[in-house]
Amino acid sequence: MYRPRQLVINSTRLMDTLHKTCVWGAAHRYGPGPTQTGMARLTLSDDDKKARDWFGDEMSSLGCDIKVDTMGNMFAVRPGEKTGAPTAIGSHLDTQPTGGRYDGILGVHAAVEAMRTIHESGYKTQYPIAAVNWTNEEGARFPKSLHGSSVWSGDFTVENAHALTDVADSSITAGAELERIGYKGTLECSAKANPLAAHFELHIEQGPILENNKQTIGIVNGGQAYKWFNVRVHGRDSHAGTTPMNLRADPLLLSARLMVAANAVAIKHGGCATTGIMSLKPGSINTIPNLIDYTLDIRHPDDAALAAMEADIRAAAAALVAEESRYKCTIELDKIFDYAATKFHPDCIGAVRTAAEATVGADMAREIVSGAGHDSCATSKHCPTSMVFIPCEEGLSHNPREYATPEDCALGAQVVMDAALLFDSRRQK
Amino acid sequence: MYRPRQLVINSTRLMDTLHKTCVWGAAHRYGPGPTQTGMARLTLSDDDKKARDWFGDEMSSLGCDIKVDTMGNMFAVRPGEKTGAPTAIGSHLDTQPTGGRYDGILGVHAAVEAMRTIHESGYKTQYPIAAVNWTNEEGARFPKSLHGSSVWSGDFTVENAHALTDVADSSITAGAELERIGYKGTLECSAKANPLAAHFELHIEQGPILENNKQTIGIVNGGQAYKWFNVRVHGRDSHAGTTPMNLRADPLLLSARLMVAANAVAIKHGGCATTGIMSLKPGSINTIPNLIDYTLDIRHPDDAALAAMEADIRAAAAALVAEESRYKCTIELDKIFDYAATKFHPDCIGAVRTAAEATVGADMAREIVSGAGHDSCATSKHCPTSMVFIPCEEGLSHNPREYATPEDCALGAQVVMDAALLFDSRRQK
Ligand SMILES: NC(=O)NCCC(=O)O
Ligand SMILES: NC(=O)NCCC(=O)O
Repeated sequence: MYRPRQLVINSTRLMDTLHKTCVWGAAHRYGPGPTQTGMARLTLSDDDKKARDWFGDEMSSLGCDIKVDTMGNMFAVRPGEKTGAPTAIGSHLDTQPTGGRYDGILGVHAAVEAMRTIHESGYKTQYPIAAVNWTNEEGARFPKSLHGSSVWSGDFTVENAHALTDVADSSITAGAELERIGYKGTLECSAKANPLAAHFELHIEQGPILENNKQTIGIVNGGQAYKWFNVRVHGRDSHAGTTPMNLRADPLLLSARLMVAANAVAIKHGGCATTGIMSLKPGSINTIPNLIDYTLDIRHPDDAALAAMEADIRAAAAALVAEESRYKCTIELDKIFDYAATKFHPDCIGAVRTAAEATVGADMAREIVSGAGHDSCATSKHCPTSMVFIPCEEGLSHNPREYATPEDCALGAQVVMDAALLFDSRRQK
Repeated sequence: MYRPRQLVINSTRLMDTLHKTCVWGAAHRYGPGPTQTGMARLTLSDDDKKARDWFGDEMSSLGCDIKVDTMGNMFAVRPGEKTGAPTAIGSHLDTQPTGGRYDGILGVHAAVEAMRTIHESGYKTQYPIAAVNWTNEEGARFPKSLHGSSVWSGDFTVENAHALTDVADSSITAGAELERIGYKGTLECSAKANPLAAHFELHIEQGPILENNKQTIGIVNGGQAYKWFNVRVHGRDSHAGTTPMNLRADPLLLSARLMVAANAVAIKHGGCATTGIMSLKPGSINTIPNLIDYTLDIRHPDDAALAAMEADIRAAAAALVAEESRYKCTIELDKIFDYAATKFHPDCIGAVRTAAEATVGADMAREIVSGAGHDSCATSKHCPTSMVFIPCEEGLSHNPREYATPEDCALGAQVVMDAALLFDSRRQK
């Protein structure tokens, strides 16, 4: 049997612990039940600190050594029979401002539950095994997703990462918040200083494919490419009642047109385009604005297609400016995040497949590409990586009603633990 | 001669006083010169209080009696030979957040300069004459333009007017701010309790007609109709990377489409449509928003055409919801301001025409319809009213660079004083 000593996840404990710790950041009640709220546990907030403290205490109590790096990434390492880089199971405890109880949180709780199960059984892994909580995976508060894991992977310097400012208050930096909550560690944040042998992650799919196919486990073979932009449109503030339509430089109208164009570009290429943040100045009913700032998120599974989408959107912007801007509207697209499509490692994909087929059977599992970015995309640049997906209701995520059944959560946690232990058992060094 | 005792405006004093008092609320420097800033003197702010205090002191020193009503409207009344309702020259001292030095401010300073000129000459009007500062003409901070004058005219109850909240902070009411700055007077705010015999107002045109026709004085015969809406669009927050384009309920995309549609409706009818304030929730780069709130300002000189514009925009909204919202986007249009087209009074229009032709000659003056709303639109419901327009550079207003030449300001002040004195001299009761 592939499953070492038949270690079995305790599904009740898994869900109880998850919901108990969701008191930190619970928000957006949508029903009367005790777990019928979403989450607003923004990274490096007071609630995030409480969840981090809990994670550290819990892992220490199971005999793990807790390491915190300069990005606040937390590594709870349990020794194996031999020394070496740990095989990690990780995800993140931060959420969106209107997030749910599963995105990221489930993945860390699966790691905690795996560690408890291993601990109770007395099972000795060959090499160390680690539960990891990555900082600011969401990019919701500080606008860089996979923030902590991208510094670890070397895609982003720790200085730039610390200097990133809160989308809602540009006087607050990520570095200052790490210090304020006591999670700016001393360990160098890098794959070199703090290597992992492999990274596994359980996550809700966040999309509709498993649900539509009535399957339980996604064997994730990679992630789609995505880019983020700050779009800035300058126009001329003037009177809403006395400025004839043909004498306006209205940056909001131009922004609206560009959003409609970006939507059409996404549909044409089979990708996605989304604006999630927007602000305008000066903000008076009877004054045409002079400045619009908004974000644009574009995605595609294929790097070349995503590049073509970017080119099409830039061309649409230039055409709109040329058409509308006798009165000097200007558009700038500033790329603030750029992530190529990710291919996971065959060894890890294979371990997930073996674990999945043993747990739910081959028919209930499928290979799948992730629509979202994950810390696993960053780790896969330095160590073999794969992920386990479970379905979520209506494919809905980044929404308070995000939901996965306790049964699926437990199955996913079983598969991610088994895959990690299988990988460990197969390691040669 | 029509001009009583040849009273002549002191143009240097007019401009010096205007610029001196613009220290309260000066903002948005655009050049090195001492007067090269715009204004951000939002109604009922500390800067507005300082300008009000100055106005009251100045008018008291000229022997005027200062009356403040429950909306903070200030009436500085100079007695005439007979008692009766005063002939008023009025405008407003508040500005847009990115406003200029002329919109409203010039009109009050013309009234002050007229009062000084009359005072120095020892000229006795037949009936009382008043300089008036109306509260929150702009509607920029509390979203109801002609706020003080509309309560005076009975279009809006004082209770509702006091309850109006700041567009930037809904915990602040207009009533509380009136109290805070000491301008919630005891005089009943109504045309009945505090009648005017006539209302004259000098204002920059805020549009391009006089400038394009190289004329100096606009004899204003009325104002165009306008309506303001709060538009609220609900959608469903979900993940920007994993939610396929055809499974989205994206309220921002719907808003963008409706803005583009409203723009087309305005062009089709020869009116205007503008969005000046917009906010979105939750505000995260990689989350489709769930709620958009934005304002819509639509205008047309003709009431029926404006009603047709509103109907077209509502139809466009319904069509967009029907087309896009399998996933339950909804749109509500809440009308928060509705002002019919205004026709000024022939007696006042005639007085302005006589004064204008005597001052600049018939060729340099033209009849004109106001594109903007003015307190004169409110007063005209209860007393004969007209306005005097002067050109402003590029027709630009609600912009820090708003500019009128000192020569035109003085000519306008002369015409508005002469028109008011002519009206007074012709009064039978
Ligand atoms: N899984 C997830 O929601 N990640 C956030 C990063 C992104 O894909 O936008
Ligand atoms: N004159 C002026 O700018 N008034 C503000 C009210 C309006 O929006 O027209």
